[in-house]
Amino acid sequence: MLNTLTGISHRTLLEDINSPADIRGLAIPELVDLAQEIRDLIIRTVSRTGGHLAPSLGVVELTIALHYVFDTPQDKLIWDVGHQSYTHKILTGRRDQFATLRQYKGISGFPKIKESRYDVFETGHSSTSISAALGMALARDIKKETHRAIAVIGDGSMTAGLAFEALNNAGHLDRDLIVILNDNEMSISPNVGALSSFLSRKLSGKTMRRVKAHIEERLGQLSNVGENILNILRKSEESFKSFFTPGMLFEALKFDYIGPIQGHELEDLIETFEGVRDNIHGPVLIHVLTKKGKGYLPAEKNPGLYHGVGPFDIASGKPQSSNGSISYTEVFGSTMVQMAMSDHRIAAISAAMITGTGLNSFAQQFPERFFDVGIAEQHAVTFAAGLASQGLRPVVAIYSSFFQRALDQIIHDVCIPKLPVTLAIDRAGVVGDDGPTHHGVFDISFLRFIPNLVVMAPKDEEELQHMLYTAVTLGGPAAVRYPRGPGERVELATTLKKLEIGRGEVLVEGDDILLLPVGNRVYPALHAADGLRKVGISAAVINPRFIKPLDDELISTWARRCGRVITIEDNARQGGFGSAVLELLGSRRLAFVRTCLLAHPDEFVEHGPQAVLWKNSRLDTPSIISAAIDLMQQKD
Amino acid sequence: MLNTLTGISHRTLLEDINSPADIRGLAIPELVDLAQEIRDLIIRTVSRTGGHLAPSLGVVELTIALHYVFDTPQDKLIWDVGHQSYTHKILTGRRDQFATLRQYKGISGFPKIKESRYDVFETGHSSTSISAALGMALARDIKKETHRAIAVIGDGSMTAGLAFEALNNAGHLDRDLIVILNDNEMSISPNVGALSSFLSRKLSGKTMRRVKAHIEERLGQLSNVGENILNILRKSEESFKSFFTPGMLFEALKFDYIGPIQGHELEDLIETFEGVRDNIHGPVLIHVLTKKGKGYLPAEKNPGLYHGVGPFDIASGKPQSSNGSISYTEVFGSTMVQMAMSDHRIAAISAAMITGTGLNSFAQQFPERFFDVGIAEQHAVTFAAGLASQGLRPVVAIYSSFFQRALDQIIHDVCIPKLPVTLAIDRAGVVGDDGPTHHGVFDISFLRFIPNLVVMAPKDEEELQHMLYTAVTLGGPAAVRYPRGPGERVELATTLKKLEIGRGEVLVEGDDILLLPVGNRVYPALHAADGLRKVGISAAVINPRFIKPLDDELISTWARRCGRVITIEDNARQGGFGSAVLELLGSRRLAFVRTCLLAHPDEFVEHGPQAVLWKNSRLDTPSIISAAIDLMQQKD
Repeated sequence: MLNTLTGISHRTLLEDINSPADIRGLAIPELVDLAQEIRDLIIRTVSRTGGHLAPSLGVVELTIALHYVFDTPQDKLIWDVGHQSYTHKILTGRRDQFATLRQYKGISGFPKIKESRYDVFETGHSSTSISAALGMALARDIKKETHRAIAVIGDGSMTAGLAFEALNNAGHLDRDLIVILNDNEMSISPNVGALSSFLSRKLSGKTMRRVKAHIEERLGQLSNVGENILNILRKSEESFKSFFTPGMLFEALKFDYIGPIQGHELEDLIETFEGVRDNIHGPVLIHVLTKKGKGYLPAEKNPGLYHGVGPFDIASGKPQSSNGSISYTEVFGSTMVQMAMSDHRIAAISAAMITGTGLNSFAQQFPERFFDVGIAEQHAVTFAAGLASQGLRPVVAIYSSFFQRALDQIIHDVCIPKLPVTLAIDRAGVVGDDGPTHHGVFDISFLRFIPNLVVMAPKDEEELQHMLYTAVTLGGPAAVRYPRGPGERVELATTLKKLEIGRGEVLVEGDDILLLPVGNRVYPALHAADGLRKVGISAAVINPRFIKPLDDELISTWARRCGRVITIEDNARQGGFGSAVLELLGSRRLAFVRTCLLAHPDEFVEHGPQAVLWKNSRLDTPSIISAAIDLMQQKD
Repeated sequence: MLNTLTGISHRTLLEDINSPADIRGLAIPELVDLAQEIRDLIIRTVSRTGGHLAPSLGVVELTIALHYVFDTPQDKLIWDVGHQSYTHKILTGRRDQFATLRQYKGISGFPKIKESRYDVFETGHSSTSISAALGMALARDIKKETHRAIAVIGDGSMTAGLAFEALNNAGHLDRDLIVILNDNEMSISPNVGALSSFLSRKLSGKTMRRVKAHIEERLGQLSNVGENILNILRKSEESFKSFFTPGMLFEALKFDYIGPIQGHELEDLIETFEGVRDNIHGPVLIHVLTKKGKGYLPAEKNPGLYHGVGPFDIASGKPQSSNGSISYTEVFGSTMVQMAMSDHRIAAISAAMITGTGLNSFAQQFPERFFDVGIAEQHAVTFAAGLASQGLRPVVAIYSSFFQRALDQIIHDVCIPKLPVTLAIDRAGVVGDDGPTHHGVFDISFLRFIPNLVVMAPKDEEELQHMLYTAVTLGGPAAVRYPRGPGERVELATTLKKLEIGRGEVLVEGDDILLLPVGNRVYPALHAADGLRKVGISAAVINPRFIKPLDDELISTWARRCGRVITIEDNARQGGFGSAVLELLGSRRLAFVRTCLLAHPDEFVEHGPQAVLWKNSRLDTPSIISAAIDLMQQKD
């Protein structure tokens, strides 16, 4: 590397690190230098590529210490969520590819088995790591092997039920398992659960060792009185509880608890991990305190903004300006405020994504009707059902791919009893750089079979407003899916109107072919109709508005008239909107209509810019035109 | 009621109980008598109708005490799972309808809003009650009302992540909320999690009050030394932990903990509930110890057998004999044993349903490869993914409707990384008397859109064997769905064979119409083909075996040949197998083929005998015949 001041090229430590084995010979001061080099590389790269900056900066030392002490990849290291795995990637042979982070065809922002044998489990959604590590631990024991299984999980991820289920099972199975609780006191938004405030009751725990013998003696006397004596105290004295935090919860689940330890002190981390590695058996939880964004001041000051960030200027910390369009998310947020002003029944629920779902303003203006339940999608929906059962009109705002966690609750707690809960499905369709774990391309398929649920998708941000209003005033279960990114720059409505349920709109009349686009595919279809007109093909365009119930009458009338239908959706083909149209045509005895379904194919869509992914799946305007021309030429 | 010994008719207490208000004037001894009358009624009824006997017998006193102390239905009482709500139903105006329990068109075995205003929330799946009650509590506070919200939840249900998410959120929100932990030390199978053994460390907690002052004094001295002194002890001394159980976990989550109290002592229950009602604010958990099956000796002795039971003889306790057929579940269980003998990679996972999924024998023979993870479907799947990532071949056996809880884990943890996990989907299709919450009529729709997943359904129990073998030897994600109830009485295979992936079989050749039945609809379709032949219609029958991938070639060849296709599936129409066939025909340019999809309509299927439900949805042999005749006559 060239030192720009001296003009002398000198070798960095990082240049010689090609696998974790290469750091195991370094001395602590060298590791400290290495941490700084890694931090610089991460900041430099993410300033250009965008990415999960703050989470990754928070675990630089933790990652180094883990690879230093444990024998990866024989020892299995699992990164919960995985967006904090940048240091891990840099240390495990991907330093030179790191510049391609999250770029199309570049390395993923999450662990991927095919990228590296150090990526032993793929993550993306939160709270899976303990379950996976426990599975690996049991496989190890069944196979009579001896490696370690280590899950690194944030305090935010710990609020999800899946993590609890895993802790409960791990405590019971009592095998060697290491859980590192990476406690930065926030997930994406600051944490809000009881667990969070419980963890924050920090202990100094350094100077008291000398009193231990003294206390043990006294407690020895106490235990003569019987095993239950302290139980009485437990019941009412709040002050006593705090003595036993923060390990209490985990010890209740039969984990050994160690900590909290400082997560940016390499020596402490290494010493603790070595102690655990060499001395502790059974499930153990090591509580590590880290700072999100550590080492980059703008990110330390505003870790929420730098959680997942686009390209930014390193010196100022300023994100590169967006194109100025208002996003669907922002319109959702402002419409929620607009509706809540006049309708006191409206409540909003977020699952640890206040900013991500655009609910900041609602949360500030209506704190008594706003609930951030933590990373707890299942609870978010059932809690909403509870509110709705008492006359409120809750709106649950969650990303499409995270709603996959709440399918049972949507069916069982909302749709069977027909409760007026609105599902605001943000990030529907491909999301871009986060890739397959985060694309929202299944929600049409996993929602449209649910009885009693109305499912809508707006063509633009103004229609989103009316759909939200339609949903909350419906009196039954409703879902509105809308994409990541900017709207269509149309004027927003000041007066909200109720759409007629199950009624679509004819946007363009035509005789040769019917284009049936859903949601964010409506404008590309309109452009396609223009293009087709230029080549002499008269394409009708209908915006169905409702994925469920479909506008049977309108669609079948125009399908009959045109004889050819192309459906276009930012969703999987299987069981999606096009499939619903086929069901409709079949039941209307319109099977003779020629059809073409444009949708994502039956594979997980990779990461890359949305426009590229739409093009790859033939969902952009040129692809629609080409599909229409093909269908016009089809004979048999 | 006529006393059969004396011949004298005397009025029972129960005859005068038409609502909970009627019990509030009774004295404790009368309540005790009432409990006995209710127990008799439940045993008498369930011996005839079948039902959840043991859970309901366990909470007779608890239910009486709750309705006695709390002002239902103004106070909201939510029964987790709801299968223990029989006493609640009897006390809330449904005594006379109770004879119709779980009968077709009779009252449901679960709480239903439309049945009674005392059923304030509908349940069926476990662990929803705290979320719902919390929602009601918040709605109350927003509306400035004053009622109580009370969730009654079993210790088994407490192991599910959803319950933890709710506790965590409730502790944070700190509103008035009562959670009754109905601790019978088992869910359906005995509990297995760390939480369970934690709860079982029972406290006698009666005689120690006099030492309290003494202890307080000593602890007063200790606390002079500093707040962290006990922290040191906490780290290693296992014995100290038990002092603080079982309330510790809940207190960590900021609940007040009260108990444990004896759940069959009406006076204790009433006194405790009154104390809580009048004195306690914020979230409180009352730990109540009950005995499943209480008051009916055969059920007390074998609560697992009497959890959900068919009609039985009261005197002997013997269940009415079944028809002697082997069930799909039993064949699953024996095939698992058969495979595990020779393949040491095979492991089995149950979510608190060892008997229900037929895994008892596997659990006994291969304890080191068997895991009951508790009511934790999410964890079950991700844990399996962890096992699979290390070379094992885990099989996760869960009922279809409960797999709805694990959709995200199936997509994210199994199918994205293509791990060799087999999903054994028991109770696929309508299940009968348990009704809409338990019917497994959505799994085809919520599985077939997932890339990399192979989905199969056997026509009979022998094919189930081969499909399981095919699944575990596949090397990637696979699902096998099979129904509740007896097989087709075909001979079982001694040698298992690997089916060719995506290859169906022609069972009957024909020229007029193609019948495409899935799984348990294959035999009815074969009978229909026989019937059609008698009226001169030549029907082909293909067993597709694979719902995904479909046998494109075979199906399109025969669809072209016949020109008419009827799909038949015990699943919802929307996005189901028929929908997949339409997608296939469309992409093969076979849109001219006339189609008819027989499947459950777009509504929740009620409870009743499977045969009645199949008939109602036109999935039985006569309906298939009639649909075929209709399709033959269709012209346009």
